[in-house]
Amino acid sequence: MNIDDEDLLKSFDAERMASLIDKYSQIGGDEAGGVTRLAFSREDLKAREEFIDVLINELHLQVRTDALGNIFARREGKHPDWPVIMTGSHLDSVRNGGKFDGPAGVFSSLEAFRALDQLNVETAHPFELVVLASEEPNTFGVSTFGSRGLVGTLTKKDVEPLRDDQGKDFRSALEFIGGDLDRIEGAIRKPGEIEYFVELHIEQMPYLDRERKDIGVVGGITGIYREAISVHGVASHGGTTPMDGRRDALCAAAKIILALEAAARAENGQAVATVGHMTIFPNSINITPKKVVLDAEIRSFYPDRIQRIIGKIEEAVSTVKKGRKVQIDRRVTYDSPPTHFSSTVAQAIKESADSLGFKTKDLISMAGHDASHMTRITTTGMIFIPCKEGLSHCPEEYTETESIIKGSQCLLKTLLKLDQRKRR
Amino acid sequence: MNIDDEDLLKSFDAERMASLIDKYSQIGGDEAGGVTRLAFSREDLKAREEFIDVLINELHLQVRTDALGNIFARREGKHPDWPVIMTGSHLDSVRNGGKFDGPAGVFSSLEAFRALDQLNVETAHPFELVVLASEEPNTFGVSTFGSRGLVGTLTKKDVEPLRDDQGKDFRSALEFIGGDLDRIEGAIRKPGEIEYFVELHIEQMPYLDRERKDIGVVGGITGIYREAISVHGVASHGGTTPMDGRRDALCAAAKIILALEAAARAENGQAVATVGHMTIFPNSINITPKKVVLDAEIRSFYPDRIQRIIGKIEEAVSTVKKGRKVQIDRRVTYDSPPTHFSSTVAQAIKESADSLGFKTKDLISMAGHDASHMTRITTTGMIFIPCKEGLSHCPEEYTETESIIKGSQCLLKTLLKLDQRKRR
Repeated sequence: MNIDDEDLLKSFDAERMASLIDKYSQIGGDEAGGVTRLAFSREDLKAREEFIDVLINELHLQVRTDALGNIFARREGKHPDWPVIMTGSHLDSVRNGGKFDGPAGVFSSLEAFRALDQLNVETAHPFELVVLASEEPNTFGVSTFGSRGLVGTLTKKDVEPLRDDQGKDFRSALEFIGGDLDRIEGAIRKPGEIEYFVELHIEQMPYLDRERKDIGVVGGITGIYREAISVHGVASHGGTTPMDGRRDALCAAAKIILALEAAARAENGQAVATVGHMTIFPNSINITPKKVVLDAEIRSFYPDRIQRIIGKIEEAVSTVKKGRKVQIDRRVTYDSPPTHFSSTVAQAIKESADSLGFKTKDLISMAGHDASHMTRITTTGMIFIPCKEGLSHCPEEYTETESIIKGSQCLLKTLLKLDQRKRR
Repeated sequence: MNIDDEDLLKSFDAERMASLIDKYSQIGGDEAGGVTRLAFSREDLKAREEFIDVLINELHLQVRTDALGNIFARREGKHPDWPVIMTGSHLDSVRNGGKFDGPAGVFSSLEAFRALDQLNVETAHPFELVVLASEEPNTFGVSTFGSRGLVGTLTKKDVEPLRDDQGKDFRSALEFIGGDLDRIEGAIRKPGEIEYFVELHIEQMPYLDRERKDIGVVGGITGIYREAISVHGVASHGGTTPMDGRRDALCAAAKIILALEAAARAENGQAVATVGHMTIFPNSINITPKKVVLDAEIRSFYPDRIQRIIGKIEEAVSTVKKGRKVQIDRRVTYDSPPTHFSSTVAQAIKESADSLGFKTKDLISMAGHDASHMTRITTTGMIFIPCKEGLSHCPEEYTETESIIKGSQCLLKTLLKLDQRKRR
């Protein structure tokens, strides 16, 4: 069923979108504009319940919550036995995060579904709107829980032993939002059940905002490599130890930090590297540091760039060891390859945006998303919308209502395009 | 009264010195060779009590403890009304420190006094051996308490509010070792009461050990300058923030750390600089650090060298601020000028060592000592003896018994030389 672009564009309501943003910003919101709606918290539950209420009472959808706490709202298609086309994101936030990371995708999906009703569209496939559980890091240290559970890469035994900082067990936390730890295996969706998955998300990078583009066509998700680097020097009196007799672990670490930064800069915007976490022993004002442990993280969509930066770490470590007579241990703590999204979905996004008159930019996501895990079981893509200065996970996180509307319109047209593709 | 050098040298007993070291090493000692005898602790009290016992029962000296907890043992001279010549050091240690920092000076004084008896010397001045209270940093954060109280630069109101990490108040702690907070003003010694003060101490630097010298003639004590440097950057996602959009406070701090190190190195052994303490916010693995606070310490006997290094900090801070768009605040937290010891005492030490056949080296102390405060009320000097590789405040701290004996012999000859100088 073909929808005229003019009709599609007219079927979205900016005021309704603004009021959605406003309403959910207050669930866990603070006066500074920040939102703390940690997964499994009272605020998370409240947001979920209010959203389910809208799905049932405003959109009249069939709603179910699976054992992982994922919420699915189904809109029937002409062929109920066909695999579903799915879209959605998450409602939970980090501590003192923003209003848009997650909700932008959920609200866009909701408004796209509402437009389908308004336009009286009968799709070929059944459509499902999903609110995925526990996407952000939370008090249990579990992120992308809902999607990893859904694709079967996270199991009961991974999470059963977890306790939060209050000593609460994960089982109770999951029950609190309507899940059931003993049944999470039954929540796995098999390849073939979902035809496509498309997630809309704020960009979290500054490119769309800087270049005044509307739609980011996401080619994939960055690879992430982390290593812990331990520098072992000698603790000595900061007064009585001559400069030439020092084996100062902090000065040695400073060299490595700057070498890592320089190596990432040399990749011309195609890689980043960060030392965000570092511990210093004994950390006493007049004792040269004996030991410094730093966590180096490298991200790039291009494995060769990650490797080149690792090579620069190797060089720096070797030089520092020799020149400063310190010992240095390195340990890889995380190594996740890049995710490549479907070119079919990307093309549908691009064509939809072009048709609707929106400006696009091809992007790679430098943050992880549920969509990354979904690639294991379905044909997946992501739409990015601009966020101001690329700031996210903070109260300053901001996206224009107009940007979300455009994203939602592009999302709807993309889903309809995919619905009309010949079945594989 | 002139003592023949041969007789003086023969009146010291290496075995007795070794057994002294051994005995006190066990008070607060651990299996790894470390000593923890924090001021005001049970171990401190035990060492003090046993030492007082030796002073009274072996050396038959008049012993008193002042309100500060300083122990004085008086050996009368020909002129009881003359000001005293004083020597001594401390018995308390840092946590997990060594056996010699402090005790070497106390034992040398003790054995010098014992030699006076053995040689039947009647001095002109009364001699006093002092064990100064709470020299090292302790659980109350008060160091050189005994000497600062003695010269009147530390008062009741400075210490009365203090609590240790167990919540114990300073008043009780001081009472525990025999002091009395309400009477500490009465313990002040006025200029004119003490003719000379000479303290023997392990060097805590590697020079005497490296150059196989016996006696360090200490010209003074380093100046110490400290500033807290706060670097304010922006916390941003370590994945989604491009390298060119970062204001990473840790990378900026790394530049300053290395600039400080380079500036101190350029002073050719005449200054040191250390960043021993640093805090990082939020210190999270994939967030660029928003704020880093580092404590920079510079030590030199030469104020112009300290100023030149401060100038290099200024340059680095200015460059980093401009190049990295971070804010940097600097706050001077400590600024203690160098102490110049008496050239009269230094000359007496030098002549005594030469006469006894000991090799000397002129040195500046890069650590603080009680002797530094004593310069306020008396003519002061210090003797350093070698310590292995300059290591101190650690279990590896080591000085040959033979070195302590030589130091003690030089100390005795110095005190006798000063005793015979014409009164001012």
